[in-house]
Amino acid sequence: MKIKKVAIVGGTHGNEFTGTFLLRRWTNNPSEITRESFTTKTLWANPKAFYENKRYIDADLNRCFLRADLDNEAIHTYEGNRAKLINALLGPKGNPAFDFTFDIHTTTGNMGITLILIGEDQYQLRLAAFIKAHMPDVNLLCIPRELGQGNLSSVTPRMLGLEIGPVPQGLLRHDIFEQANEAMRLSLDYIHQVNKGDEPESGSNVEVFMLRGTVGFPVDDDGNICAMVHRELQDRDFKELKKGDAMFSTLNGETITFNEEKTAYPAFINEAAYYDLKIAFSLTDKISMPL
Amino acid sequence: MKIKKVAIVGGTHGNEFTGTFLLRRWTNNPSEITRESFTTKTLWANPKAFYENKRYIDADLNRCFLRADLDNEAIHTYEGNRAKLINALLGPKGNPAFDFTFDIHTTTGNMGITLILIGEDQYQLRLAAFIKAHMPDVNLLCIPRELGQGNLSSVTPRMLGLEIGPVPQGLLRHDIFEQANEAMRLSLDYIHQVNKGDEPESGSNVEVFMLRGTVGFPVDDDGNICAMVHRELQDRDFKELKKGDAMFSTLNGETITFNEEKTAYPAFINEAAYYDLKIAFSLTDKISMPL
Repeated sequence: MKIKKVAIVGGTHGNEFTGTFLLRRWTNNPSEITRESFTTKTLWANPKAFYENKRYIDADLNRCFLRADLDNEAIHTYEGNRAKLINALLGPKGNPAFDFTFDIHTTTGNMGITLILIGEDQYQLRLAAFIKAHMPDVNLLCIPRELGQGNLSSVTPRMLGLEIGPVPQGLLRHDIFEQANEAMRLSLDYIHQVNKGDEPESGSNVEVFMLRGTVGFPVDDDGNICAMVHRELQDRDFKELKKGDAMFSTLNGETITFNEEKTAYPAFINEAAYYDLKIAFSLTDKISMPL
Repeated sequence: MKIKKVAIVGGTHGNEFTGTFLLRRWTNNPSEITRESFTTKTLWANPKAFYENKRYIDADLNRCFLRADLDNEAIHTYEGNRAKLINALLGPKGNPAFDFTFDIHTTTGNMGITLILIGEDQYQLRLAAFIKAHMPDVNLLCIPRELGQGNLSSVTPRMLGLEIGPVPQGLLRHDIFEQANEAMRLSLDYIHQVNKGDEPESGSNVEVFMLRGTVGFPVDDDGNICAMVHRELQDRDFKELKKGDAMFSTLNGETITFNEEKTAYPAFINEAAYYDLKIAFSLTDKISMPL
């Protein structure tokens, strides 16, 4: 399978600056994202949200790509319009002009470089394993295909999301910026080598964190968040969380523990963008997947 | 000098959650901020900005307290109105009902617990030194009185700002929350002890970082930020910055060094709230002040 057209998308969320500024870097240094065997297009997904320093204007752009919503002319929010435009540029979904989409995000969680896979496609998995072979601290997070259909990157048959942190909203960190650039370099190298018929070695299997669900914040009678992620859980993304471990501290100082029987590996711990949804973190299962 | 009325202000900036949630804690646990020798009032400064998860709606509330602006009826922005109301409740400036204001802020900079003093009042300085004696990692940052007259806490004759980080905008960190609560407990204890005529020992002098100025981000011909705080400077708030040290990395990867002859101690390094002002960090001088 040959990849001929690659899209690199940044700034899907306006207050996640790293992607937007990586695009500016590559505008000045196009050779960094150029490979002989395919063409690369960069796309700045949500300029207005960047200028307003918000995740989105009207609706989360990374939830606007369900086929039914793309086909629904009655949806004409700012992001609804952007989604239709991006679908026209990179897709259309189902019969796309582009073969592969990279989408660059940041998180306030301590997730390091996390590669987000939608579905269990072997090509994506091998690409992610190749990056991890060169950057061992990288994590792979897999979202079931049916849950990822609203995501921007679902316009092309194959995709990889970069989710890097911890970085606060509305700023750039040099260390994070360089790590993201390196992960992109490796990704494009991999695609080029496979295109040449020279697939690099990635091992026989790879560790993947499979999304299990989310955990909501405790709320009071008025629905207000009334507890914090416990300091013993804070920053421990992808570490074991067992029954009885501290999970929340209420504002009054009481500890609430994790009570599921099955050990979990949390992700997106204390992600600022999920406070309005009252989501405290996600749960994943650690599995090994064959390559 | 006896302090009879103390105001504790939180949520002056809507996306700095710690103060807002500390006020909620104290609503449920009023004894924590109650002392026999004075009354304590809590004030939630900018509810609308909190609900919109923004620093401010129309104007930075912590710059709205110049006497001329408070007296100017033509200023009727959301924050202009709030400032006039807060001035009526705690002030009026020049003849205030309250003796002391605490104002709780957070920063994305790695500033730990920083106590912000406006002017060189000895009472404030001794209070801050007392907190530092019990929490040795605390930093004292002094802003010249003339530069602090727009600040909310300038409505009362004495004040202390809490500036705690690193914490991203729009979320709570349990560790930061508890440190802020502890700093407030010590502060109220100090005031109570002094009121009783039993001033605690704080030493004969204290280390203070005196604001010298700010350093702007490099910008391109269109005025866009085109460099990042260098990873060797990131997170090094209140550490020595000498001539020749790395200061910025351009998006293209070139290093820009610090070129002032006089060694500085930076603060507010990579504070997200200052990106729209294109300010990268502040410079301070480390001095010792007698108590």
